[in-house]
Amino acid sequence: MLGRLNHVAIAVPDLAAASAVYRNTLGATVTDPQALPEHGVTVVFIELGNTKVELLEPLGEGSPIAAFLAKNPSGGMHHVCYEVADIVEARDRLKASGARVLGDGEPKTGAHGKPVLFLHPKDFAGTLVELEQV
Amino acid sequence: MLGRLNHVAIAVPDLAAASAVYRNTLGATVTDPQALPEHGVTVVFIELGNTKVELLEPLGEGSPIAAFLAKNPSGGMHHVCYEVADIVEARDRLKASGARVLGDGEPKTGAHGKPVLFLHPKDFAGTLVELEQV
Repeated sequence: MLGRLNHVAIAVPDLAAASAVYRNTLGATVTDPQALPEHGVTVVFIELGNTKVELLEPLGEGSPIAAFLAKNPSGGMHHVCYEVADIVEARDRLKASGARVLGDGEPKTGAHGKPVLFLHPKDFAGTLVELEQV
Repeated sequence: MLGRLNHVAIAVPDLAAASAVYRNTLGATVTDPQALPEHGVTVVFIELGNTKVELLEPLGEGSPIAAFLAKNPSGGMHHVCYEVADIVEARDRLKASGARVLGDGEPKTGAHGKPVLFLHPKDFAGTLVELEQV
């Protein structure tokens, strides 16, 4: 069922500073910031050849990463995103196995314009898992 | 300088349980456990096509992931590992930019038998970064 690693997401308090570290200190290719007000974040992508790292900065009130950054003020790894071919089939299989899907269980349109779901960290070794249909 | 994402490492309190979740619930390919006493961990790899996830369980006294699991008893994302072509050149460039290399700054032989270094999380958006020469 599980496909490629789509991205690793790192929440950061200062997107410009974190982008500069990746671009200048680590010599990586970093995209321009993209504000996603409907997701409460501004993002950049670090292009790594085989996959990407997504840096997330809170945008607006009630950002979904605000609580995480309150607990981790320097930033930190926030979630991993795995690709699946059919997100509804994946969800049904996960629910049948007892895993918890966050929210109302219906796929939403993610930051890349594709259907996504998030899974409960307690069911996946303490790691917030995003599934994206590709 | 930065190459591919070699792996994302997730520290887990129970490797058999976490492997079962990835194998059975998520339908992933999980390798057999490999004890690495010199690194204080037992590992499995989840093969994702473009990269891999490494699940780490503490092994023996003084495991380098023991403190992390004490703080995160359910487990959690522990580090990301990026590939570099020349680890000594990468280290010298990082040190010149003011980034902190952990330990004595000399590359060690990592879990895959290749030279590795770890970088201070405070210098990389709260994320422990491993560099591996490939």
